Amino acid sequence: MTQQLQITPLDRLAAALAEPLEGVGETIRARMVSEHAPRIPEVTEHLIGAGGKRIRPMLTLAASRLCGYRGMHDVRLAATVEFIHTATLLHDDVVDQSGQRRGRPTANLLWDNKSSVLVGDYLFARAFQLMVETGNLRVLDILSNAAATIAEGEVLQLTAASDLATSEATYLKIVRGKTAALFSAATETGGIIAGADDEVVAALHVYGDALGIAFQMVDDLLDWQGDDIGKNTGDDFRERKMTLPIIRAVAGAEGDDWAFWARTIGKGRQEDGDLHRARALIDAQGALESVRKDALGWADRGREALTRCPPGDLRDMLADLSDYVVERIR
Amino acid sequence: MTQQLQITPLDRLAAALAEPLEGVGETIRARMVSEHAPRIPEVTEHLIGAGGKRIRPMLTLAASRLCGYRGMHDVRLAATVEFIHTATLLHDDVVDQSGQRRGRPTANLLWDNKSSVLVGDYLFARAFQLMVETGNLRVLDILSNAAATIAEGEVLQLTAASDLATSEATYLKIVRGKTAALFSAATETGGIIAGADDEVVAALHVYGDALGIAFQMVDDLLDWQGDDIGKNTGDDFRERKMTLPIIRAVAGAEGDDWAFWARTIGKGRQEDGDLHRARALIDAQGALESVRKDALGWADRGREALTRCPPGDLRDMLADLSDYVVERIR
Repeated sequence: MTQQLQITPLDRLAAALAEPLEGVGETIRARMVSEHAPRIPEVTEHLIGAGGKRIRPMLTLAASRLCGYRGMHDVRLAATVEFIHTATLLHDDVVDQSGQRRGRPTANLLWDNKSSVLVGDYLFARAFQLMVETGNLRVLDILSNAAATIAEGEVLQLTAASDLATSEATYLKIVRGKTAALFSAATETGGIIAGADDEVVAALHVYGDALGIAFQMVDDLLDWQGDDIGKNTGDDFRERKMTLPIIRAVAGAEGDDWAFWARTIGKGRQEDGDLHRARALIDAQGALESVRKDALGWADRGREALTRCPPGDLRDMLADLSDYVVERIR
Repeated sequence: MTQQLQITPLDRLAAALAEPLEGVGETIRARMVSEHAPRIPEVTEHLIGAGGKRIRPMLTLAASRLCGYRGMHDVRLAATVEFIHTATLLHDDVVDQSGQRRGRPTANLLWDNKSSVLVGDYLFARAFQLMVETGNLRVLDILSNAAATIAEGEVLQLTAASDLATSEATYLKIVRGKTAALFSAATETGGIIAGADDEVVAALHVYGDALGIAFQMVDDLLDWQGDDIGKNTGDDFRERKMTLPIIRAVAGAEGDDWAFWARTIGKGRQEDGDLHRARALIDAQGALESVRKDALGWADRGREALTRCPPGDLRDMLADLSDYVVERIR
């Protein structure tokens, strides 16, 4: 009930990082300008103006600053990470043929698939230009690896959709590609740019990775539970996405139940009432409860990794963020 | 008539660079493997197996070797350049909704738009990983700038299509994005990796840029003239692309003729016989002849730049290549 008024760890991070976040916003606006192609800022302004939570840039800034960094490279890195994220959103909209994103029509509906593909490419290129400006090859290595993991995860998700044999290991690779690879690159490169010790850099990587996995697991769980922010229950079922709740329900299914999954997910023939039955089968396997426990476990792992990082307010806020992303399912 | 038997400068380059080109092929095959997503090599093998001319990797290898390079970084760079090129082809097919490429069905018809977008992203990411491995920040700077110019040019082409007010300056920017930016990045980075003097590196840039512009102008000219390798005359007219012949014809058009262009290109209402009339209007302005002269001028500029580079067989072959790309319109 007081959800609306609660000050979240994201709010506190945004306040603590207000100045560099301003710099990130300026960098993004300056770099998405295209002298030659005014369509580009039109498309990106639409996306970036839609008010994302800026969680990724905050991860970079918090990681570098909790390690004592005071320069400007982390602002460039944070903008890089947000550009990569925005580019993947643009391409996702083409791939998912989505009509809505953050409650507004997606760019591919307002303009067309062509613009979404090409402007996404432009943002990727801009991201690489920005990261090259940091002049740090270790950072470039991590971010280019993250970009490959993201693309690989997306392709894997495409081929795994409707495949009942999808394993939990495959799910984890998809989740790393969708979310955790960029989270961990954001925190790890923040530590590197600050010149942190290897042990701290490794801990920051583990934190970002675990946070991203917990974040995505909660998202996949809420697709089955519904929540108060308007996400549509059952989207993943309709799109035949093999998320963890379905993987676990299918793993325990026999006879008629297995035939049900083969028809609705494998063949995509869905009828009225199927979503209800799917949920019942998932509950019968205790799948939501077990995924919930796993998500909490990842959040714990992330918080625990932070104990190997320099103490302070920013570290505390990141630890609280770890709890916050799983709070909705606690 | 003896066209089929003629040994081209491309053939001679391929023979002179046989060993490093083998290395490029191996690098490409090794890097497009994806442990997690077998769809990826499926899609790229289809494209790369289609037997492109490998002109871009040869440009990098020839540039580095004529400057005396003997290491392995140019092989990585050449593979990088081919990956970027292949990624843009995949995304172009989605944008153009093409059904054929190099005489074979395009990837987006064989699989789907989704795979074309995501596998293209994967190749971009792989390209960045490879270039990071060269450890040369100047190379990274040039290639990330080229990637931005390419994406910007594509967006510009999209917005310029059907716009009768498109200027020759805009056309040149589109051509640089489509072709010349990657050609010049290929030659320039070849020189840099070889440790060539700034003057030589600059000359290699001018050569690649001029070669790319001549190459694309010839392509746009042949769309109006037809040639013997099966390119369809009139594709650009049907797609309402403002290439140089149309820009020049429109610039000199008045009254009925202007109305014709406004209807066919501006509004896209095309009827039987329109292609014939378009060609007549282009001829009336001498537009094909003037574009032909410009293309030859760019080829000359490219050849001339090479005189500032170290002499030898490879330099001679690159000079011949400059003539070769405009030979079909001589």
